[in-house]
Amino acid sequence: MGRNFSSDHVAPACDAILSAVNKANEGFVTSYGGDELTAKLQSVASEIFEKQVAVFPVISGTAANALALSQIVPTFGAIYCHEGAHIVTDEGGAPAFFTGGAQLIGFPAADGKIRPEQLTKAVAFAEDLGIHHVKPGAVTLTQATEWGTVYGVEEIAAISAAARQHGLPVHMDGARFANALAHLGCTPAEATWKCGVDVLSLGATKNGALAADAVVFFDPAMARDFERRRKRAGHLMSKLRFVSAQLIAYLKNDLWLNNARHANAMALRMAEGLKAVAGAKLLHPVQANELFVVLSEESARSLEMQGFDFYRWSLHKPASGVTIRLVTCYATASSDVDEFLAAAALNKR
Amino acid sequence: MGRNFSSDHVAPACDAILSAVNKANEGFVTSYGGDELTAKLQSVASEIFEKQVAVFPVISGTAANALALSQIVPTFGAIYCHEGAHIVTDEGGAPAFFTGGAQLIGFPAADGKIRPEQLTKAVAFAEDLGIHHVKPGAVTLTQATEWGTVYGVEEIAAISAAARQHGLPVHMDGARFANALAHLGCTPAEATWKCGVDVLSLGATKNGALAADAVVFFDPAMARDFERRRKRAGHLMSKLRFVSAQLIAYLKNDLWLNNARHANAMALRMAEGLKAVAGAKLLHPVQANELFVVLSEESARSLEMQGFDFYRWSLHKPASGVTIRLVTCYATASSDVDEFLAAAALNKR
Amino acid sequence: MGRNFSSDHVAPACDAILSAVNKANEGFVTSYGGDELTAKLQSVASEIFEKQVAVFPVISGTAANALALSQIVPTFGAIYCHEGAHIVTDEGGAPAFFTGGAQLIGFPAADGKIRPEQLTKAVAFAEDLGIHHVKPGAVTLTQATEWGTVYGVEEIAAISAAARQHGLPVHMDGARFANALAHLGCTPAEATWKCGVDVLSLGATKNGALAADAVVFFDPAMARDFERRRKRAGHLMSKLRFVSAQLIAYLKNDLWLNNARHANAMALRMAEGLKAVAGAKLLHPVQANELFVVLSEESARSLEMQGFDFYRWSLHKPASGVTIRLVTCYATASSDVDEFLAAAALNKR
Amino acid sequence: MGRNFSSDHVAPACDAILSAVNKANEGFVTSYGGDELTAKLQSVASEIFEKQVAVFPVISGTAANALALSQIVPTFGAIYCHEGAHIVTDEGGAPAFFTGGAQLIGFPAADGKIRPEQLTKAVAFAEDLGIHHVKPGAVTLTQATEWGTVYGVEEIAAISAAARQHGLPVHMDGARFANALAHLGCTPAEATWKCGVDVLSLGATKNGALAADAVVFFDPAMARDFERRRKRAGHLMSKLRFVSAQLIAYLKNDLWLNNARHANAMALRMAEGLKAVAGAKLLHPVQANELFVVLSEESARSLEMQGFDFYRWSLHKPASGVTIRLVTCYATASSDVDEFLAAAALNKR
Repeated sequence: MGRNFSSDHVAPACDAILSAVNKANEGFVTSYGGDELTAKLQSVASEIFEKQVAVFPVISGTAANALALSQIVPTFGAIYCHEGAHIVTDEGGAPAFFTGGAQLIGFPAADGKIRPEQLTKAVAFAEDLGIHHVKPGAVTLTQATEWGTVYGVEEIAAISAAARQHGLPVHMDGARFANALAHLGCTPAEATWKCGVDVLSLGATKNGALAADAVVFFDPAMARDFERRRKRAGHLMSKLRFVSAQLIAYLKNDLWLNNARHANAMALRMAEGLKAVAGAKLLHPVQANELFVVLSEESARSLEMQGFDFYRWSLHKPASGVTIRLVTCYATASSDVDEFLAAAALNKR
Repeated sequence: MGRNFSSDHVAPACDAILSAVNKANEGFVTSYGGDELTAKLQSVASEIFEKQVAVFPVISGTAANALALSQIVPTFGAIYCHEGAHIVTDEGGAPAFFTGGAQLIGFPAADGKIRPEQLTKAVAFAEDLGIHHVKPGAVTLTQATEWGTVYGVEEIAAISAAARQHGLPVHMDGARFANALAHLGCTPAEATWKCGVDVLSLGATKNGALAADAVVFFDPAMARDFERRRKRAGHLMSKLRFVSAQLIAYLKNDLWLNNARHANAMALRMAEGLKAVAGAKLLHPVQANELFVVLSEESARSLEMQGFDFYRWSLHKPASGVTIRLVTCYATASSDVDEFLAAAALNKR
Repeated sequence: MGRNFSSDHVAPACDAILSAVNKANEGFVTSYGGDELTAKLQSVASEIFEKQVAVFPVISGTAANALALSQIVPTFGAIYCHEGAHIVTDEGGAPAFFTGGAQLIGFPAADGKIRPEQLTKAVAFAEDLGIHHVKPGAVTLTQATEWGTVYGVEEIAAISAAARQHGLPVHMDGARFANALAHLGCTPAEATWKCGVDVLSLGATKNGALAADAVVFFDPAMARDFERRRKRAGHLMSKLRFVSAQLIAYLKNDLWLNNARHANAMALRMAEGLKAVAGAKLLHPVQANELFVVLSEESARSLEMQGFDFYRWSLHKPASGVTIRLVTCYATASSDVDEFLAAAALNKR
Repeated sequence: MGRNFSSDHVAPACDAILSAVNKANEGFVTSYGGDELTAKLQSVASEIFEKQVAVFPVISGTAANALALSQIVPTFGAIYCHEGAHIVTDEGGAPAFFTGGAQLIGFPAADGKIRPEQLTKAVAFAEDLGIHHVKPGAVTLTQATEWGTVYGVEEIAAISAAARQHGLPVHMDGARFANALAHLGCTPAEATWKCGVDVLSLGATKNGALAADAVVFFDPAMARDFERRRKRAGHLMSKLRFVSAQLIAYLKNDLWLNNARHANAMALRMAEGLKAVAGAKLLHPVQANELFVVLSEESARSLEMQGFDFYRWSLHKPASGVTIRLVTCYATASSDVDEFLAAAALNKR
């Protein structure tokens, strides 16, 4: 099982979160979020973000992203993002479905991080075309990015400033927000609303939960009627206590950060080790828990034969060989990494 | 806690299901339903329904209903149902959202059960208006109904026959399917595909699960691309094993039926007891786990003051007094019922 | 041709409007509504409604209604209306499509006119169910109604007052607004914004135009981004001058009222004449240009055989015989009516 | 007026088409397309395309494109197109609205023409991601392209072949189809279904009509229920005869081709003349009725001051100067072109 680097959601839930679910299974409580745990989640999150926030638990990152975007983007709007963002390639059209037709406008960026100038240029183009074009609606950043890189706080602030100039809200897809935070070493507030983020999709599933993500509005007024959107999408669970319990456990006692730190450390250990592997080449700086590695076809195949699980990354075709993606998580052991490295090194002989 | 008769999802999960979740938390497994438990669920369900079925776990009845309907009804279609069906009054517009605009056409029926003639008449009207009207799309039955009654197998067959005549598929909202089945005493197959049901929303959440419902297609060919609908609605969970585990436990060893039988028995005990309560009047035959009772305003208020939880049912205004809904569940103790009855009887002195 | 009473859009366009189209075919002008005629339409309409209005020409009543409703109703909202309103039965699901899923909630009313109490009760029910139900979104009145009756100004005011209490905007489907106005004998302002109407679908197609309807916002601020909705629905015509020209001609020199008065007079002539026809029975007061008449089956068939065109109205099944709908229009000659009456009277001998 | 090169829909309608509208204004006829002219249009179009086709008149190119795509692409589908296609930049989000969320996936191509390899690669990527990605839905080609170039018949055939391999239908946005056809010199059949096109948006508005476009299905079976889509989008006109009349006149007596040939000839005359204008540079081969010209800022401004109308093309920023777009049409006189050329030449002294 330690040989599975295919994604961070192949792992089981961590003990503290599973315990919280078990503990939540007590007695008759009001359903649909009227329970004490869901109320408590509001205060726990508000404390952690140093601000009164409105938190809405859901059970997938796709739901969190699509619901959040549908709340802030008009149905005839444009959503500006990275061209390889999860919402563009991996959410089955959810953003357009939930918004009723908003258009994803992706920007290229080798390191996965969009730039303020790209936003400014796209909005100028939209304004030039007026009502014939979709209306600029929102910007969304993936943090950590799909390439395992992390936006710096100033980078986010610069994009937010450009967005503000055009009256656009800023959404952050934080499916791996904890990994980014662990890398940045700043506070959750500094990494979000203090640098201009309005709404956060806060992922826990990839970092140790069973199924728990949340939409966090840093201005509760922006969440008006959001509950209705969640309800009509079938994402208002009747026994919501079980998701709230996961999120409370996740945010308490630095569990989220500790899990993420471990995952990041394993990724760095892997990156370090790969330096010694002849023929292996990292595509991006390793700042979170994902690595994109160019290997020879034989090497990749040999690793697969030995039972290591990972994705061949079709989006990036190297001049020779293949690109694979390796993902570490809270449950990755250093011995798992070392085994992989040993096997990879052997292949090269 | 035993004083809560407000709904069947205020209860905790039952032990067997929670255990299954805990047990599922083993090792690294393929995500998005590629795990063994999800595969096993297919065979468990196929065995129970005596037919190769396609089962898709989700986490709410609203999701199950709206996804199922979007699969079988065109975006310009009509969905025929009871005027007080859950999809009409209690799912926040989900069916129209998921179908992209299908129209709910509700039929009145005092006992919550629509009649084949109503369907035939509505379709004739639609055909008369041609393309100006929405196109007949599907029929959906709620089993058990919102009024706690249960369609007989022949009643379902008659509606299905009328639907077939017009080429319409039949959906069953089985949020309380186990309660209906327990009442009917027939096999799951007899209560569904054998009497013409094409797709079933099979609820477990209200009958002992944490959060587990499933869309069951009795003809797997009808499920083509259904996975894409689930995905883009944010309802494809990455760690699907945790929902599949619940459903397997639910269906195994007659847990679902035993839970439902208990809930139904508690409802009957309550119904029986209410006969002795002066001024209390049952609105409908009690065939599942819901009771609709007319009480005097004073009696209702007194019960509330004593800590009994239930809904005042605004949809039905009696000539005098109020209508309340009482829901029993797998976790209702006979002493809970007896306490309620004793309090209600006292009120009347 | 004079024997066609099937609808008011089987007639050709009237001369003044066709002339205006021909005259508009002059020179190169800015497209998409940047032309002088479209600008002029704004001032013509503002003058007629005694208020600065925002007018958006489209080419069908369905487009006008659905666009207007999508502007004022949230995608998770309820639209309150008569159960037999055109938007419910005859627009192919357009309101749900344009709003992205809003739900039509129809009230019964034998004379086609909904009552304030019905609205109040429905909103109370919605509020009782909270986020589980669709959110109260708007009220829409059909004026003249589908049954050829006309809301009085005070009746509209009473409904508007009830709507205001719940913060709901009021839409009027005025496909036959001119006919209603001709009946009421009041000013356009009195029949709309002065009694609480916020948005009007103003029909011209049924009253002498080729293809021209308009959405009229009585508060231009309510029309924010409406142009984007029209554009993305494919209803922003590039050569908009040709529709604006029709609407200007329609509103100028009382053409709309004169056409409507004639149509209404023909309907009354028909109603008067039918009194003398044995076995014929009018279902509703004739206040606009539609008549619903119960005839014997033989009589109806005989009229059809003689080449008279009309609809058999399946929505209303009389105890014996059939219900037919007769529609008069600006182009109906009194001799057409007299011929019909003569034929109907003969049938009865 | 001859100084307006901003677009081909700033011109009035041509005489033959306006005459046809006037002539259509005869008598009472069945509405909603049940009239003789609409029936005749089917046969006229079938003759011209040498095949039984199904034709649906609408009043804008946006409506034609969005309706056509919604018919052939699933709501969770991908639409492959050029990144600068009209549906991507200039239709206000209509394709996503009409399809209920399909995603536009644009390919770059300097000459406006996508390549089969781009399609093949994109589909391979989609298949690699499976249900996480939108499902390959359709390919759409703009003919003539947005850059005034024209796909050759073999180019279309090659793309169609690639589409067929993946089971994808081929749509052609023919807002300027007549201009393309005039350039190609082949038959309408050769330019469409014979090289694999399944559905055509056939534009007439830009080439001499008042407001007339049509969706043409080369396999009528593909048009099943299409009328319902048109209806619920508000695009089924009651007096459809007026649009059908335009389209018949357009297709008869080679009017469409003659108009397009003239427009193309004027564009070539302009292109030829610009060769002599110092500092003017054409960006693309001129194959239809659009020219993209790089000029100095002073020259552009001077032309504007002299009353020439054209767009500055923000999408293309030259190293120095500005890019302008010039559009000729059926009503452009050679003297108009010559005046422009003279003025442009003078600027350069």
